[in-house]
Amino acid sequence: MTMNFKGKPSRRAFLKGAVAAGGTMASASVATAAGDPLITEMQDWASGLGDGVDETPYGLPISYESDVVRRNVEWLTADTISSINFTPIHALDGTITPQGCAFERHHSGAIDMKKGDYRLMINGLVDTPLVFTYEDLERFPRENRVYFCECAANTGMEWAGAQLNGAQFTHGMIHNMEYSGIPLRTLLEEAGLDAAGDLKDKWVYVEGADASSNGRSIPMEKALDDVLVAFKANGEALRKEHGYPVRLVVPGWEGNMWIKWLRRIEVTDQAVESREETSKYTDTLEDGTSRKWTWVMDAKSIVTSPSPQAPIKHGHGPLVITGLAWSGRGAITGVDVSVDGGKNWQPARLGAPGVDKALTRFYLDYNWQGEEMFLQARAKDSTGYVQPTKTELRETRGENSIYHNNCIQTWWVKSDGEAENVEVS
Amino acid sequence: MTMNFKGKPSRRAFLKGAVAAGGTMASASVATAAGDPLITEMQDWASGLGDGVDETPYGLPISYESDVVRRNVEWLTADTISSINFTPIHALDGTITPQGCAFERHHSGAIDMKKGDYRLMINGLVDTPLVFTYEDLERFPRENRVYFCECAANTGMEWAGAQLNGAQFTHGMIHNMEYSGIPLRTLLEEAGLDAAGDLKDKWVYVEGADASSNGRSIPMEKALDDVLVAFKANGEALRKEHGYPVRLVVPGWEGNMWIKWLRRIEVTDQAVESREETSKYTDTLEDGTSRKWTWVMDAKSIVTSPSPQAPIKHGHGPLVITGLAWSGRGAITGVDVSVDGGKNWQPARLGAPGVDKALTRFYLDYNWQGEEMFLQARAKDSTGYVQPTKTELRETRGENSIYHNNCIQTWWVKSDGEAENVEVS
Repeated sequence: MTMNFKGKPSRRAFLKGAVAAGGTMASASVATAAGDPLITEMQDWASGLGDGVDETPYGLPISYESDVVRRNVEWLTADTISSINFTPIHALDGTITPQGCAFERHHSGAIDMKKGDYRLMINGLVDTPLVFTYEDLERFPRENRVYFCECAANTGMEWAGAQLNGAQFTHGMIHNMEYSGIPLRTLLEEAGLDAAGDLKDKWVYVEGADASSNGRSIPMEKALDDVLVAFKANGEALRKEHGYPVRLVVPGWEGNMWIKWLRRIEVTDQAVESREETSKYTDTLEDGTSRKWTWVMDAKSIVTSPSPQAPIKHGHGPLVITGLAWSGRGAITGVDVSVDGGKNWQPARLGAPGVDKALTRFYLDYNWQGEEMFLQARAKDSTGYVQPTKTELRETRGENSIYHNNCIQTWWVKSDGEAENVEVS
Repeated sequence: MTMNFKGKPSRRAFLKGAVAAGGTMASASVATAAGDPLITEMQDWASGLGDGVDETPYGLPISYESDVVRRNVEWLTADTISSINFTPIHALDGTITPQGCAFERHHSGAIDMKKGDYRLMINGLVDTPLVFTYEDLERFPRENRVYFCECAANTGMEWAGAQLNGAQFTHGMIHNMEYSGIPLRTLLEEAGLDAAGDLKDKWVYVEGADASSNGRSIPMEKALDDVLVAFKANGEALRKEHGYPVRLVVPGWEGNMWIKWLRRIEVTDQAVESREETSKYTDTLEDGTSRKWTWVMDAKSIVTSPSPQAPIKHGHGPLVITGLAWSGRGAITGVDVSVDGGKNWQPARLGAPGVDKALTRFYLDYNWQGEEMFLQARAKDSTGYVQPTKTELRETRGENSIYHNNCIQTWWVKSDGEAENVEVS
C-alpha cells in the first residue's frame, strides 16, 4: 500500500483492501473498500417515499445519533441544579457547536424568563442610570462574532492525575458559537461614563437574574474592549440553558463571567470581590496562597478522535487524528501532535486559519499499523505561548488548583484501537 | 435627540425617552428606556431554582420561540413529500443557520438510512470502480468550510410579481452551515482518473439513494475544484432531512445538485441530461427556448428585518435594518440599502468580511421617524457583479422562468411599522 500524507492521497489503494472487481460493480463478487459485501438488492429507501416537509418544523438529530448528547457526571456535584453537563466533543467535527449540545453550567438552575419580562439595568458611576427592555436592546447597532466559551474548571479533575475517561468529560466544558449582540461599550456610553472619571481603574460588576445572581467584576478596559451583550447564538435566540433572552459574552475569559439572564451592570471604583471571585474561581497555589483575577483561558488543545469514547474501529492504515485548539489570548497559530507521549512532534493541519478567541479544528492524516500510541496535542497561539505539559504546569502551580488546567492531555491508544486517559511522565 | 450613525451611538438619549430618574434606580418612579414601568418586586426566577443539567440532554429552543420554525406553503405543491419548507430567515441573525431550522427540499421525501447500510459507489470512466462504506469515508483527509445552499427556485414566485408575504417565503430556501467532509477530488483520485483520459470534457453524474435518485451532471472541472462529500454540518451529523449520513456539497451552485443520501458518482464522457436538468432546473426565456446548465447562484440579498413577518413594533428613532447577502461566484464585497425604492442608496455595514460562497450579514443603523419606506438591498460580489432590479432581470430573461430569480426585493414599510411585499417600477 502506498501512502502520501502531503494532503493528497495516492491514487489507488489508499484504503487497505480497496479493490473492487474491475468494472462490473453489479456483480455479487464485488466487495466494498473495507471488504463488506456489496448490497445488490433494491432497498426500501430507494423504492418507497420518505417524510414530508411538514413533519419536522424544528428538526432534531436522527435517532441513530441519540448518543451524541450532553452528559452530566452524577458524582461530580451534590445536585444537578448547581452542576455541569459536557459537550460531546468526541463525536463532533468542524468548529461550530450547535446550541443543542453545547455544555451547561448553572449555579441555581436554568431559569424561565420571557422577553417581555426582561430588564437590564446599568447603574453606579454613570451619568444617567438606565433600564433597558429586550426591545430596547434590539435597536442598538449589533456585531456578529464567533467565540469559544470555556468553564474555568474544564479539565480541572486532571490536576489529580488521569481521572475521567473521555474527551467529553475531560475537555467538554467548552462550546463555540457565532454570537449576535451589542458591544457592552455602546450601552455603557449610552448611560454616560463622564461620572466615572478616569476609566483606567474602574470596573463593572455584572450579575444575572437567577437566584445565584453569579456576580462578577470585570475591569473597565475589558468591558470597553470586546465584551458583547448577546441575544442570539448561531443565528437563533439563546437556548433557555444558555441565558435566554440575554447573556454576556466575555471573549477569551472564563465562562463563569459570561453572565446568563444578565440583569444588571454596575460601574464601580473597585472590584466587588464576590463569592464567585474569592472562595470560587481563584487558584490555590502550593504554599496555600491563592491567585485571583485569573480570567484569561490559556492556550489548550485536545485530540477528540481517537479518544476513549471514540476508539479506532477500522483496521490498520489511514487514520484521521483530529481535535480542537483554542486560546483566550488570541488566535491559534499551530498545533503539534505526538504519538509517543511527547518525545516527537509533527505539525497538524489546521482546518482553517485560527480565529481570535475561537475554536480551531486540526487534523493529522496518519498511517496507523496497530502500534500502541500515546497521543498528545500541543497548541501554540499568536502571542507565542505554547501549551505546557502536566509536569510543567504542576511545577508552577502545585496541585491544589481546581481551575485553569490547560496542560497537554494524553490518550493511550492500544493495539485494539481502544483508548484510555493516562498520564505520562 | 442626537444620532450618530458612524458605528457609535451618541452618548446619551440614543433611544427616545431613554431617561431614568437620576441615580435612584430602586424608586418606583424610574422608567425603562422605552417608558415601561420598572419591575421592583422580587421575581420568581430570582428566588427559586431552575432546571438541572440532567433535564436537557439535547437542548431545544425555549417555548417562547416556537414560531421560529421552518414552514411550508400548502398550495405551493401537490404533496408534502415532493415539496419545500422555508428557513425562518426573518427571525434569525448572524450567518450560521442551525440545522433544525434550515430549509428542506425533497423530491420523494426524507429517507431513513443507517450509517451501517450506507454505500457510496464510484464507477464509470475510472481505473478501479470502488464502493465505500461510511467508515471508509471517515478515514480520508477532511476539510471544513462554511457554504450557503440555495434552491434554484428560491424567490421563483416573484417572477410573476410580488406574491408571498414574508422573507421566509420569498427568500427562505437558503441555509448556511459549516460542513466537514472529503474533497470529491480525493475520492475520484482514489478510484483513479487515468481511464477518463483528457479530463477537460468529462463529467460526473451524481445521484441519491432516495426513490427520486435526483441525478445531476457536474462538469469535471467543478468536481475537482471545491465539491465536498460531507457528513457533518455545524459539527454534528447531518439531520435526516439534510441527507444523513452523507450529502454532496457543491459550493455556490444550485441546491438541487447538493445530492442528499449520496449513493453513486459515475465518471462520464457527457452530461446525462436527466429529468432534473432538462424538464426541470432549466430557464425558459421569452422566445420559448431554454437556458440550461445555469448552475451558479448569482449575487443576491434580502432585508430580513424589518419585513412582513418582522414589522417595526417599537417607536420612532433608532432602527436596525438587517439582512443577508451571498454570491455563488465569490465573496460579498458590499451591500447597499435604499429606503426609497432604489432612488438613493447608502452602504450597509457588513457583520464580518464576506466569505467565499457563504452568507454575509449586513446592518444599516437607521433613524426612522415613521416615514413610509420602500426598503431594498443590493449586493455586490468579488467579481464586480451587482444584483439587478426586477425590471432589468425581466428584460434579459423574460417572465417564463421559475429558477434563478436574484432580483432586488422591495418591502413597503408603512408608517405603523407593518411591511408588505410590493413591486416598484
